[in-house]
Amino acid sequence: MGDAVRVGMLGLGVVGCGVARALDEKADAIARRAGRPVHLARVLVRDPQRPREYTPRAPLTADPAEILEDAGIDVVVEVLGGEQPACEYILAAIRRGKHVVTANKEVMAKHGPAILAAAAEQGVDVGFEASVGGGIPLIGPFRLDLLANELTSVAGILNGTTNYMLTAMATGTQTYAEALAEAQRLGYAEPDPGNDVEGIDAAYKLTILGSLAFHTRVSPSDVYYEGITRLAPSDFRYARELGYAIKLLALGRLVDGAVELRVHPAFVPRSSMLAAVDGVYNAVQVEGDLVGRVLFYGRGAGPGPTSSAVVADIMDLAQRVGISGPARLVPLAPTEHRPIRPMRDVRTRYYVRIVAVDRPGVIAAIAGIFGELDVSLASVLQKEDVVLEEGSRYAEIVFLTHEAREAAVQDAIGRIAALPVVHHIGSLIRVEG
Amino acid sequence: MGDAVRVGMLGLGVVGCGVARALDEKADAIARRAGRPVHLARVLVRDPQRPREYTPRAPLTADPAEILEDAGIDVVVEVLGGEQPACEYILAAIRRGKHVVTANKEVMAKHGPAILAAAAEQGVDVGFEASVGGGIPLIGPFRLDLLANELTSVAGILNGTTNYMLTAMATGTQTYAEALAEAQRLGYAEPDPGNDVEGIDAAYKLTILGSLAFHTRVSPSDVYYEGITRLAPSDFRYARELGYAIKLLALGRLVDGAVELRVHPAFVPRSSMLAAVDGVYNAVQVEGDLVGRVLFYGRGAGPGPTSSAVVADIMDLAQRVGISGPARLVPLAPTEHRPIRPMRDVRTRYYVRIVAVDRPGVIAAIAGIFGELDVSLASVLQKEDVVLEEGSRYAEIVFLTHEAREAAVQDAIGRIAALPVVHHIGSLIRVEG
Repeated sequence: MGDAVRVGMLGLGVVGCGVARALDEKADAIARRAGRPVHLARVLVRDPQRPREYTPRAPLTADPAEILEDAGIDVVVEVLGGEQPACEYILAAIRRGKHVVTANKEVMAKHGPAILAAAAEQGVDVGFEASVGGGIPLIGPFRLDLLANELTSVAGILNGTTNYMLTAMATGTQTYAEALAEAQRLGYAEPDPGNDVEGIDAAYKLTILGSLAFHTRVSPSDVYYEGITRLAPSDFRYARELGYAIKLLALGRLVDGAVELRVHPAFVPRSSMLAAVDGVYNAVQVEGDLVGRVLFYGRGAGPGPTSSAVVADIMDLAQRVGISGPARLVPLAPTEHRPIRPMRDVRTRYYVRIVAVDRPGVIAAIAGIFGELDVSLASVLQKEDVVLEEGSRYAEIVFLTHEAREAAVQDAIGRIAALPVVHHIGSLIRVEG
Repeated sequence: MGDAVRVGMLGLGVVGCGVARALDEKADAIARRAGRPVHLARVLVRDPQRPREYTPRAPLTADPAEILEDAGIDVVVEVLGGEQPACEYILAAIRRGKHVVTANKEVMAKHGPAILAAAAEQGVDVGFEASVGGGIPLIGPFRLDLLANELTSVAGILNGTTNYMLTAMATGTQTYAEALAEAQRLGYAEPDPGNDVEGIDAAYKLTILGSLAFHTRVSPSDVYYEGITRLAPSDFRYARELGYAIKLLALGRLVDGAVELRVHPAFVPRSSMLAAVDGVYNAVQVEGDLVGRVLFYGRGAGPGPTSSAVVADIMDLAQRVGISGPARLVPLAPTEHRPIRPMRDVRTRYYVRIVAVDRPGVIAAIAGIFGELDVSLASVLQKEDVVLEEGSRYAEIVFLTHEAREAAVQDAIGRIAALPVVHHIGSLIRVEG
């Protein structure tokens, strides 16, 4: 068995406690399977005196230098979360020749290219399996197993909070506000749920996956995102009737050499594997020229799944500690330079729910505008149900389009909203798959 | 960019042509992503003159020594299939210090431990991602990403041929014979389909996954297997009514420190992800103490998926070629020694379909035998439908048991079959999940 690998950890929150517990309690099995012991040597915390859910065997410190500048530490694990000082610490560890493992999606999305370039220069490696999809093996497969493929599409359910809420809302028993309250009560949603429900969390994760899938540099500002806050109960009813489920989809596609990246609610066919992903589970579906369609599924968050990924990354790096030569030959830097397709040029299908006066000629007027803007309609649905509001009767009309350009659809929607007979645009949801 | 890696390939059948084509046509992208060119240097074939679907740029040879004894060849790819001479060639390549990539499930199931031990001794590595689940990343995740977990269960749909047939039979429009004929017509089933329909192919794959999942030595003879040849249309009807799908499940479980390994048709809940795996697709679902439930899904066979896995393995090994020191510290040998639980001691739930005389007291007689053998019944179903045969009327009675021991159920079935009122036992299908 090889020499012990000494790990310094930055942070001891829920995830940090999970990692420390796994390293302590599973020390024997980890040593057997990694070929050398993995020893948690020191943990950075803000206040070493504060009581915690789990107290590691390792000493605690409030001074980052005791980890970052300790030449005896081989691997630094960053589980602080947030952009700073996490990013700064990661770069400091790399500069001192340490391998790094991080669970930080925000840092990897915003600073991944700089971090990976610094690591390549220093001959160290960065494990970030835990930054996307919790314990689901994703980064490993993208960095290696799928490397022989030209990937054309990555479609993910990357946020467990919103998927839990959408699953509850799909049963028809919960509104958005009720689903959010329950998710908060169960600890699936934070008191300030903005990052989750607005799609920001999923956009960070798509930034990471998109750059790996398409071997190109992607920054969070390249990702169009839209949250789930405006979905109405009737959207779920129509989705069901039409044979779809509504999911917050994180979608990356390579079309004509350009990359499109977008996070938004989407209709996905009920018969698809993605539609079967319910509750807090995550999934990522990939299409490659050789492999065809592959899907990965599992819990995307929580101390267990996250520490599963973090400890595996440590065990992987443990193989390289003390070995001279480059950490790996597979370059961490993007090998292609692909343009990003702006959202207005994206082509997909659309579900549009419009609340309008219940009067002859309304459908014709709306359909006419779609037609003028070259948005071809696949079907129109008007139910007997009407919306009662302010004492007036309104009809709810649903349009499904064929594939159309986003900009044209948005133009049409703007002009339709301005029609005197139209009360408001209820929803615009993209239809994928 | 590093020096070129020189690959020698043994075999140029459907998979070999796929690999050669990928290496030739994707040479530039592979070189960029692997950090060094990967060059197919020579291919072993039986008859170099025979016309083929794809003619590689590399020279062909009928002499294995031109690959196995060529010091300039760094990686040997074995895509011959079958046990011999494939196994002998793999061991010869390892003895000469070459890394090996193989797609051969039979060789890895039967001789994996010997091959991995020989590789460890020589400081080389063996990639066998393509041996299970085609292009689905499985071996990588088991060898690394899930390594921090104690896995308690691996449940796979590992044979695309039978899953295609079961999907067709579940629609109620095809019998077993019709589904087999169609699978053969489409090239999904071989003229002699025994290995697929009898569960042997899935048993080889479960041998490989089971040894990785439970870190213990498993041989094909440790796997109980049973095929799909005896499933009747009525089993699919009952499954549907009761909320299940029928899948040929390859199941490995760690129960009280012992490993059970079995391949057989199983009822799986319609709401489960595994039930949604239709057609030629494969899937593997894993349960781990940290990660919870994870599932991998994709095409389990075919030249595209298989070459996706083979080329990824070559790219992984390319990182190690020319690097001194051990190929990897993560030991390839099993780190645990776990007993195999014999089939008779397995505990699960059962669906039993019995064809009996339609007469009062028959259900009581059958239920009595189950009770005497401690097999507790969860439900009994007798439909109005009767089977007409030899002019007689028979009732079809379905029993669902609670969890029971296999030996007790088999005893009960034996005694029930001997009852004068029982015409025959239609089916015994295990209920999982």
